[in-house]
Amino acid sequence: MRSFDDIPGWLAQRKQEHLLRSRNQLQSAQSTRPVINGKEVLSFTSNDYLGLANHPSIAAAMRAAAEQYGVGAGASHLVSGHHLEHELLEQELAALVDREAALVFSTGYMANIGVISALMSRRDTVLEDKLNHASLIDGVRLSGARSLRYRHNDTDHLAQQLERAQGKKLIVTDGVFSMDGDCANLCEMADIARASSAWLMVDDAHGIGVIGQCGGGLVHKLGLSSEQVPLIVGTLGKAFGTSGAFVAGDKSTIDYLMQVSRPYIYTTATPPAIAAASRAALKLVAGANAARTNLTERIQQFREGIKTLGYELMPSYTPIQPVVIGANEKAVSMSEQLLKRGILVTAIRPPTVPKGTSRLRVTLSAEHTADNVEYLLGVMEDLK
Amino acid sequence: MRSFDDIPGWLAQRKQEHLLRSRNQLQSAQSTRPVINGKEVLSFTSNDYLGLANHPSIAAAMRAAAEQYGVGAGASHLVSGHHLEHELLEQELAALVDREAALVFSTGYMANIGVISALMSRRDTVLEDKLNHASLIDGVRLSGARSLRYRHNDTDHLAQQLERAQGKKLIVTDGVFSMDGDCANLCEMADIARASSAWLMVDDAHGIGVIGQCGGGLVHKLGLSSEQVPLIVGTLGKAFGTSGAFVAGDKSTIDYLMQVSRPYIYTTATPPAIAAASRAALKLVAGANAARTNLTERIQQFREGIKTLGYELMPSYTPIQPVVIGANEKAVSMSEQLLKRGILVTAIRPPTVPKGTSRLRVTLSAEHTADNVEYLLGVMEDLK
Repeated sequence: MRSFDDIPGWLAQRKQEHLLRSRNQLQSAQSTRPVINGKEVLSFTSNDYLGLANHPSIAAAMRAAAEQYGVGAGASHLVSGHHLEHELLEQELAALVDREAALVFSTGYMANIGVISALMSRRDTVLEDKLNHASLIDGVRLSGARSLRYRHNDTDHLAQQLERAQGKKLIVTDGVFSMDGDCANLCEMADIARASSAWLMVDDAHGIGVIGQCGGGLVHKLGLSSEQVPLIVGTLGKAFGTSGAFVAGDKSTIDYLMQVSRPYIYTTATPPAIAAASRAALKLVAGANAARTNLTERIQQFREGIKTLGYELMPSYTPIQPVVIGANEKAVSMSEQLLKRGILVTAIRPPTVPKGTSRLRVTLSAEHTADNVEYLLGVMEDLK
Repeated sequence: MRSFDDIPGWLAQRKQEHLLRSRNQLQSAQSTRPVINGKEVLSFTSNDYLGLANHPSIAAAMRAAAEQYGVGAGASHLVSGHHLEHELLEQELAALVDREAALVFSTGYMANIGVISALMSRRDTVLEDKLNHASLIDGVRLSGARSLRYRHNDTDHLAQQLERAQGKKLIVTDGVFSMDGDCANLCEMADIARASSAWLMVDDAHGIGVIGQCGGGLVHKLGLSSEQVPLIVGTLGKAFGTSGAFVAGDKSTIDYLMQVSRPYIYTTATPPAIAAASRAALKLVAGANAARTNLTERIQQFREGIKTLGYELMPSYTPIQPVVIGANEKAVSMSEQLLKRGILVTAIRPPTVPKGTSRLRVTLSAEHTADNVEYLLGVMEDLK
């Protein structure tokens, strides 16, 4: 786009190419059976992996805190907006992922750009997985550091790229990859990081709450210490069913981020009622072993069923189960046909995923029943 | 900091230099009389300009929505997290500032970086006021566009800098400057922008709700059309007393941002209950003429009183009333002495403000009484 006047033309062309994104309208609580655009559907689209987005205890915690504290925090954390509820949430999140301290951000996007831009600068190098989440990529861009991308989950290529790195070296990876659902080879990566005095930062947005004992996430499950993984980012908007995000690490690291991270400093604190809701969610997450077992069963059921039908799956054992379709038009048309049968599944197209790998991104929740998954498989069979 | 190992040393030195920031802990609702660190204080620190952060109708709207919709949106706007409450809020915000459409972001920081990085790229030029908010500066950095700073509110210098600009030209300014409290010369700037086919973007974070008919903000008060100011950013975390932010403009501009703004696309939508609370706030804001009158009276009372005491004020007629002290230590020590007398006022130091201009940043609210301001003036007299 060379001029602001080109915007309407750009939109028209985008529409012609079937690349104009539109928003569905959610008219109920988020769940596996939401009302979308006036119609109840069976949804496989949310990141509400444990079915907590509409959990009554979490809503009750938000309501009680709104009654007691009102809605707005009214100021940034460093002025007068840092509430007791934020403080307690930070302590409890740090304990969940076995780190000394945590810092709560308004969103995962802000946590990722806030951590990377605070630690890295022009003279430094960030090593990034080619499939990292957009917020990590933007964090590197904002920091001004040199970016060296390595092939997806390819630790040999990572080690090679590290040899070219200068200044401080930070390896940044998704824990669970958001569009593929596979997990990063964190143990190998931690060894490589240590051998070259690099730090390893893991965005465990899709792992927290879902993976590991008490839902401590992928890093916690693998037992990686803060020397091995100095920076863990987690979100509260997915398995927790609330909103916001956090970074956890050693106390000095967190203290440092609090002093210099601009996305942390220059923003109004989130409502105390959101922090209170997240604290209620954390208790449920820690005790949600039955839900995690159900989720694992649904994942297995879906994978076995869809493989039998001859669809192409990805090497994912997480709730993110992409079915690779290939062409944009076919992925979109299948998503439309699923909707006609009452099922909501999102078609993910470039630039979010590489060209030629357009996919149906099925996400599973502990709230899905075996019948729900059976129904989805039945329709997928018809569309074959 | 040349190595990650330097972090503890950096913190120790910062502490020695009295530059280590610490967080007060808010233990009540935000208000003019919050409980901070265990003690009720008279606060002049929040951006809760209309006293809505703890308004019962807004809390009630949040509670009702949490009851109906749960807490988490569970997905991004373009997947399945865009709720009816977000949609209605966007329509109502657009009407408030007299624009065709609006797009809701999670925070003002995200709105600013989201708008600038979506519209501008390497070949383009952003003209920035030297005192612009950190989020605007970071937005330009993220976009990769060339940045040309102009002297604070100096339209001659702006016009000069524009002659050096290449590619698309975007002039970006705070409406009300967050650390000085003065207003941008928007009418002149709009003329200059039009003469050179530049777009003008105004971050009206501190103007929305406070300035103009129905609280429509500075751009609205000056009657500037969307041709003159194509992009208005406003926040919901200050005068609205809730959380989040928005950008408003022509429908095609907003449609475009929805398609390409990465901080908008790659983030979980805010809880529907926050949107519902903001809609309740919007109704109150629109009808808050009595509160705005009281606020104006408190601003005049403070300015007259503090001038009589011989303190240095800035040319601000907004609720942000900085009292320039000069040296860091003196500003901090005065803030401490005010606290001993039960008054919370933040000392703002470099790098947030230019060196040698450390200040007490007094922010006023419609909730402050004449007695509150009288008490503050009395203590300031004692500290003279």
